[in-house]
Amino acid sequence: MGGGSGGRGKGMPRAMAPVEEVDVAAVRYKPAELQAPHLTGFPLRAFVWLLESPLLGPLVTSILKKQNNMTQMLQHTVIPERPMFYPEYPPQEPERGVVTLGDDRDPVDRVEEALSCLAPYDPSGRFTSADEKNPFLYWKIRDFAYAYRSGITTPSAVAELVIAGVEEWNNKKPPMPMLIFFKADDLRKQADASTKRFEKGSPISVLDGIFFAVKDDIDCLPYPSKSATTFFDEIRPVEKDAVAVSRLRKCGVIFIGKANMHELGLGVTGNNPNYGTVRNPHSVDRYTGGSSSGPAALVSSGLCSGAIGTDGGGSVRIPSSLCGIVGLKTTFGRTDMTGVVCDAGTVEVASPLTSSVEDSVLLYSALAGSRPMDKLTLRPSLLCVPNLVSSENSKILQSVKVGKYTEWFHDVPDNEVSNTCEDALNLLCSTFGCQIEEIILPELEEMRTAHLVSIGSEAFSDMNAHYQAGRRTEMTLDTRASLALFKSFTSADYVAAQCLRRRIMYYHMEAFKKVDVIATPTTG
Amino acid sequence: MGGGSGGRGKGMPRAMAPVEEVDVAAVRYKPAELQAPHLTGFPLRAFVWLLESPLLGPLVTSILKKQNNMTQMLQHTVIPERPMFYPEYPPQEPERGVVTLGDDRDPVDRVEEALSCLAPYDPSGRFTSADEKNPFLYWKIRDFAYAYRSGITTPSAVAELVIAGVEEWNNKKPPMPMLIFFKADDLRKQADASTKRFEKGSPISVLDGIFFAVKDDIDCLPYPSKSATTFFDEIRPVEKDAVAVSRLRKCGVIFIGKANMHELGLGVTGNNPNYGTVRNPHSVDRYTGGSSSGPAALVSSGLCSGAIGTDGGGSVRIPSSLCGIVGLKTTFGRTDMTGVVCDAGTVEVASPLTSSVEDSVLLYSALAGSRPMDKLTLRPSLLCVPNLVSSENSKILQSVKVGKYTEWFHDVPDNEVSNTCEDALNLLCSTFGCQIEEIILPELEEMRTAHLVSIGSEAFSDMNAHYQAGRRTEMTLDTRASLALFKSFTSADYVAAQCLRRRIMYYHMEAFKKVDVIATPTTG
Repeated sequence: MGGGSGGRGKGMPRAMAPVEEVDVAAVRYKPAELQAPHLTGFPLRAFVWLLESPLLGPLVTSILKKQNNMTQMLQHTVIPERPMFYPEYPPQEPERGVVTLGDDRDPVDRVEEALSCLAPYDPSGRFTSADEKNPFLYWKIRDFAYAYRSGITTPSAVAELVIAGVEEWNNKKPPMPMLIFFKADDLRKQADASTKRFEKGSPISVLDGIFFAVKDDIDCLPYPSKSATTFFDEIRPVEKDAVAVSRLRKCGVIFIGKANMHELGLGVTGNNPNYGTVRNPHSVDRYTGGSSSGPAALVSSGLCSGAIGTDGGGSVRIPSSLCGIVGLKTTFGRTDMTGVVCDAGTVEVASPLTSSVEDSVLLYSALAGSRPMDKLTLRPSLLCVPNLVSSENSKILQSVKVGKYTEWFHDVPDNEVSNTCEDALNLLCSTFGCQIEEIILPELEEMRTAHLVSIGSEAFSDMNAHYQAGRRTEMTLDTRASLALFKSFTSADYVAAQCLRRRIMYYHMEAFKKVDVIATPTTG
Repeated sequence: MGGGSGGRGKGMPRAMAPVEEVDVAAVRYKPAELQAPHLTGFPLRAFVWLLESPLLGPLVTSILKKQNNMTQMLQHTVIPERPMFYPEYPPQEPERGVVTLGDDRDPVDRVEEALSCLAPYDPSGRFTSADEKNPFLYWKIRDFAYAYRSGITTPSAVAELVIAGVEEWNNKKPPMPMLIFFKADDLRKQADASTKRFEKGSPISVLDGIFFAVKDDIDCLPYPSKSATTFFDEIRPVEKDAVAVSRLRKCGVIFIGKANMHELGLGVTGNNPNYGTVRNPHSVDRYTGGSSSGPAALVSSGLCSGAIGTDGGGSVRIPSSLCGIVGLKTTFGRTDMTGVVCDAGTVEVASPLTSSVEDSVLLYSALAGSRPMDKLTLRPSLLCVPNLVSSENSKILQSVKVGKYTEWFHDVPDNEVSNTCEDALNLLCSTFGCQIEEIILPELEEMRTAHLVSIGSEAFSDMNAHYQAGRRTEMTLDTRASLALFKSFTSADYVAAQCLRRRIMYYHMEAFKKVDVIATPTTG
């Protein structure tokens, strides 16, 4: 056990040392080990039947958990820390060189302020045909903004291209069901309104007329929110936009529809038998990753500038990584989750997927803003944007320390992944002069356990009443297998996982005293 | 279900209305119903064996839980609120007429400031022999302070009386094992040091030379903390005083030993086969209540001025009530729990048992003070003492509104209890002019469920590793039955209980907008 010390006497369980006393420098890295049955068709059906059986189910899940050393350590280890249920942060000093975007302010103002932090926009070379060196050049938000303002195109004209693009992808063989709810008429109506604003010379913000998608677990009228199930609209009707969506609407954003996802967000492949599985636009024989499969594919294919996804365990980061785009998981609680299906957990956030970091800054500056109660109780750090225009900041990257836990960095099945990441990191450092510092993060294995138990328990709790009322049979087998596992977690497992959370938070806080960021490959 | 509304369609579970939308005025009171098997001897042993059996145990606990409608509602109800794990309070306005005792200050200063808020001390009539009207007159802290300062007696002289008293109770038939760890020599040493301070004319505070007991789940040197088990000192050695104890020591308090309790605090009778069961000093055929049985009996019998107990579900309030003394459960997080066995839950506090409200004020003003991290994250309200000396406050009780939920108030098996409480309440109002306001607290049944699941899960989580390592068999059958039940709670039960906590907190906050206090009988 990483960082834990403890003797085993007669009847004495393993005991972790108090987290402040762990000698981090002496921690040995332990490679990740995971075993999961790989089943399809009838064997999968039989396996799920077994998992869900009242008598045999508990036995099978307990064997599975033992094999994967899932909850064993939670039950057999004395963890001296008190539980930390929601992430707790000590008050943080404002960093230098950043602009703080007060989250009570109007999203339009915040976006304008974020925009003023970016290096000046230069349209030269953006509107000539793509050269051979850059075949994958994405249009950025500021490209659209420039094009609309200079009369190169209009939101209505782009809308027709988007509608044609959606059709084209849907009709591919095999099809690419990136959007599972899509109304061309609604899209045209939004685009026409935006076009009129430009005609009048009064666009609302730099986001006016920009096309975004919304993951199917975030409320966005006129669509239902099914979380890519077949039935969720029956148990959870949508009455208004999610807060995150309404903030973007205020800025003039155009929503193209509801993006496909792993059913209920309970998986990281994006595989979805209900609506078909989205394929990776870069290589249609590969997964996009998930659960935000549709959002990532839409942005990656260039059909829209960005998307709002949700991430509780990699659901934005994993598909963004596999689809070659930018995915941000933000500080917990920094975006209002009202109107998001998974709004009751302790790990999920609604956050942006875009094709560039610059677009991520603009989208997130509109999106962010904590629930009033969260501001009181979680005190999430304020939303800050580095001011890239100020002269003071021109050399700020030279002072940035990038934390790297080399053994963890390279603990991936294919070294091509970590070597590419290493090259990218070295390029960053040689270009901008930032420094790499070696760090150690203890108890990563325990972190995975604590995370699985937390997110699984919260997801199951959210579904429990419907599950018990018979909706279980309307779910995909994949989801049912996950829920059967989550159902088996005990309340003591959950509380112990929160004790681990306090340790893990501590280790990360300590690491962030040494470094400014921690770099890792996103997926193995 | 109180306050909940919800249709039952095909496959539609019961759904609670969002808490803000519940029409509290329309809520109908639902009397409490509880069924628990009453077993002793061999049937109890067989029952515990059954509960702990890996195959039949889950079946039996699930039947028991169904019978008592324990976790059923958690699993079959859609609760729209997000979980609230630790109590969350919005920032509170300071009340008028109170003195705020900053909890960073030295306990000695705080006690002196609290003392200055009390009405002036008048020794007349306190040191004549007890008259027939008041045979149960308790010595108050200020009586001892006066007696020490005026040379009537010394801490050393009182210590000999305490030592003789402990002996006397221990030798009664049946015995009264109020203290389970007691060292006469240690007591004499503390008393002699205090006596010397008085001889030099330099007592530390009004608490100097005052005798207190400590419940056996709070660390107090030179004693072990066994939580009245037979083995706890082996798994949790005591290295220093609990923070609460050390604060009192700073004030010159004398600790007489470790008080008996319900094993691990897991029961409200105080029944304890390991050390013998403390009997009620007012009637030795009756229980003291628990789990702080020893502390309540010690104070009630007059052997010490007060005690520090712990309360997570009535463990101070119940025995105080049954023993006719004053028990305080304070705001969660307002006392530092470092050095208390049950320091990792979301409900327990360490708090005072005394023979009078005045003594409770003095003891608590020394005891209180949040952990630094709790101050940041829980922001518990500040410790305030009403200034009874200020002229502004002489009529403050006239403006106090006492909330009473009449149906709940009278939902006790024996109406003598509620009638006596009613009389006391009326006497209070007629004497001081305070007003009674009728209130309604919805979902009390759900509150009991949420509380049981919370405290049970946290208690089991705390013991899990030792339980799995075989310590189970060293526990009493009573404890084992409780733990077997707690072990069966699922993580989804726990999360759902925290969603209920948010509702219950809301209802109480709303009630406290109308009234200043809520009065109920403590026990039925």
